[in-house]
Amino acid sequence: MAEELPKSVRIREVGPRDGFQNEPEVIPTEEKVRLIGKLGDAGLKRIEVTSFVRPDVIPQLADGVEVLSRMEPREGVAYSVLIPNRRGLERALEQRDRFQEANFFLSASETHNRKNVNRSIAESLADLEGTIGAARDAGLRCEGVISTSFGCPYEGEVPRGRVFEIAERLASFGCEEIAFGDTTGMANPRQVGGFFAAARERLGEAELTAHFHNTRGQGLANVLAALEDGVESLESSFGELGGCPVPPGSTGNISTEDLVSMLEEMGVGTGVDLAKLIEASAEAQKVLGRPLGAHLLTAGPIDWHR
Amino acid sequence: MAEELPKSVRIREVGPRDGFQNEPEVIPTEEKVRLIGKLGDAGLKRIEVTSFVRPDVIPQLADGVEVLSRMEPREGVAYSVLIPNRRGLERALEQRDRFQEANFFLSASETHNRKNVNRSIAESLADLEGTIGAARDAGLRCEGVISTSFGCPYEGEVPRGRVFEIAERLASFGCEEIAFGDTTGMANPRQVGGFFAAARERLGEAELTAHFHNTRGQGLANVLAALEDGVESLESSFGELGGCPVPPGSTGNISTEDLVSMLEEMGVGTGVDLAKLIEASAEAQKVLGRPLGAHLLTAGPIDWHR
Repeated sequence: MAEELPKSVRIREVGPRDGFQNEPEVIPTEEKVRLIGKLGDAGLKRIEVTSFVRPDVIPQLADGVEVLSRMEPREGVAYSVLIPNRRGLERALEQRDRFQEANFFLSASETHNRKNVNRSIAESLADLEGTIGAARDAGLRCEGVISTSFGCPYEGEVPRGRVFEIAERLASFGCEEIAFGDTTGMANPRQVGGFFAAARERLGEAELTAHFHNTRGQGLANVLAALEDGVESLESSFGELGGCPVPPGSTGNISTEDLVSMLEEMGVGTGVDLAKLIEASAEAQKVLGRPLGAHLLTAGPIDWHR
Repeated sequence: MAEELPKSVRIREVGPRDGFQNEPEVIPTEEKVRLIGKLGDAGLKRIEVTSFVRPDVIPQLADGVEVLSRMEPREGVAYSVLIPNRRGLERALEQRDRFQEANFFLSASETHNRKNVNRSIAESLADLEGTIGAARDAGLRCEGVISTSFGCPYEGEVPRGRVFEIAERLASFGCEEIAFGDTTGMANPRQVGGFFAAARERLGEAELTAHFHNTRGQGLANVLAALEDGVESLESSFGELGGCPVPPGSTGNISTEDLVSMLEEMGVGTGVDLAKLIEASAEAQKVLGRPLGAHLLTAGPIDWHR
């Protein structure tokens, strides 16, 4: 490992949105609020708490307004919500004082974008331009998330140039942060190596964030490659929540506790209290009534007897 | 990723020994033989098929002689057995013409070695010297496996110099290959980076093999760090068999199919037919009657639509 690793990284916890959204049962609002509190207590400084998608499409997150109004914000934590469109932004803004960041998304591949939001990429970009502008006007920090950045299950390879072009558009709309999502776990470390350095050259000032999934068990190897490529911002989900819970073993986001364990063991600071984070995931297991995929939940932190 | 990755690697499949040994139920010999056949058909060129430990201690592998005599060797495959001591070697040699390699082991930490084989490291080395010599005299290629090479659950840090000292002794006894085992998943990529390059300097000619566990989800990240550090030989277990099946999620070896997927996606050749390997693991799932941990078993290979 010739490359220098960063001294510390920023982690955005996406479990309350990306994880809860994929649960077959709707989690009671009070449990969501309690778990979001525990995540803040564990030292996570960026937490995506809900999404303002259509309640009939994703009933799991229909209580976005209630979650925002009832959660007890921890000091120094930036809370964010996922915004699908202008109407979603308007609903979110009813609770404007309860969150600091808005996250917007589209896919880098036409087929995936159409299946996900029933629009072409051009149509998505046209809507996002106005919506992100309005979010900026409301004083929100904006993140643009590009799904299928490392491959599309319908189209296969996604040209890097196409991904960066979309990233540049999002930055020009006012996104201070661009996340590249490996939505269905197709990325490999060799592909990731060089990707972020190239993105840095194209995107200048914007914060670049890696959002990996562990669908094929390669999530943390991709994180390592991204760190070696200069990444200092990551997204993950506590307990390894997310993805489809059926069939068993089908995983979504990388687990925040497995990520924190690897980073801290490598001397890369996260600011997260691993024991408290595992507590939060153990609570989530109780609420959901099933074992979650994070390895640390079973293995526990490493005891070096120091 | 500045380092060059190798064009290809050698993989030893250890599931039939390391995996089957950890199953609560004894697997019928005929099923073991059938699965070992499927692993050879999948293109694996090194397969550890059983161990000659005391049958009263590990009844799961009491049928070592039967497995060797009944399996149908595939052309070009090197079959190996794990040998705990002189008595084990004598039993294995009853089927001398059925295998080509013998694997020997001890731990790099005193406490782990004592708990595992009820001996000091010095006592283990004294016995191994004669046993490995006898195995060499019988024409077997010998591998020495050093457990807890990256950390010990009882003692914490294990000095690298101590690990290399043991490795040199094993090489001097006649081991042509030395495997460094992360027995309880304590290794991290920063620790692995540089480890194998340093081992190479100390050990000259010997083949150096990385044996990682996925206990904390970092197995494939450690593989990446090892590849970047010059490793071209790995050990893994199909289906992610191994480790303790209780509680759920407690994992042992890295999964061979997840490993092969990552390597092939990075352009590192393995010679393994991933679809056939997944078939073998799916068969193992049926035999064991429970879902196994390998991600590829659920997600399947990546379809790039090429």
